[in-house]
Amino acid sequence: MASFELRAIGRVESPLTDLESAPRQPDEGAPPASLVFEPAMLEALRNLQPGDEVIVITWLDHARRDVLSVHPRGDTSREMEGVFSTRSPHRPNPIGLHRVEITAVEGSRVHVRALEALNGTPIVDVKPVLNEDVGER
Amino acid sequence: MASFELRAIGRVESPLTDLESAPRQPDEGAPPASLVFEPAMLEALRNLQPGDEVIVITWLDHARRDVLSVHPRGDTSREMEGVFSTRSPHRPNPIGLHRVEITAVEGSRVHVRALEALNGTPIVDVKPVLNEDVGER
Repeated sequence: MASFELRAIGRVESPLTDLESAPRQPDEGAPPASLVFEPAMLEALRNLQPGDEVIVITWLDHARRDVLSVHPRGDTSREMEGVFSTRSPHRPNPIGLHRVEITAVEGSRVHVRALEALNGTPIVDVKPVLNEDVGER
Repeated sequence: MASFELRAIGRVESPLTDLESAPRQPDEGAPPASLVFEPAMLEALRNLQPGDEVIVITWLDHARRDVLSVHPRGDTSREMEGVFSTRSPHRPNPIGLHRVEITAVEGSRVHVRALEALNGTPIVDVKPVLNEDVGER
């Protein structure tokens, strides 16, 4: 099959540095974080503002790509599930989706309220939340 | 900055073949479509079932990567916006997010109710919808 070149456009700055202690989801104690973009991305960022809810797309660079099924949430008492039914970081293309609220924008640095990604995680895209993402149709 | 190898794990099969006439969002007349996965992905798919709502992640292989701002929805009467505030396919990493409902699963072929992606679009990941995606927290 075909492959494509995904390019880091920035990095996460976060107090989270330890994979084992990182929360699995943002409502499980994720801290505030910064999205630090390449200066070349300033034009693409220019309409983002505090209060916006966006989907940050990351590349989970600590994940394994050869895992196709997992125990949900690492709980070995639960039956293995195919990774496409889970949010496991381990999957053929370890893409992370993170819905966040922007709290401040300072040039190419965007502050967000809560993010469960590790410090240094590459950012690959940012999108606004749409109605069909949030089930409001 | 770093780059990463994204691998196609399947393709969209859809009656949509024309970029100009494709709907911009699924509630704008998107037709039913199939997600045709590589046979090697069967294990990762095994818990998907009709009625599941999932996020299909695609690589928008007709998009331009050098575009950083656009007229929203191509409407030149509207002011240019940074692409991270829009769902324009044209962006540094042309990743598509598509929330779909599964209607049937036949081996490595997954049927979905409505999808606005063009025929042949590469699929790179599938994730379940979580509460924080849909704003139910």
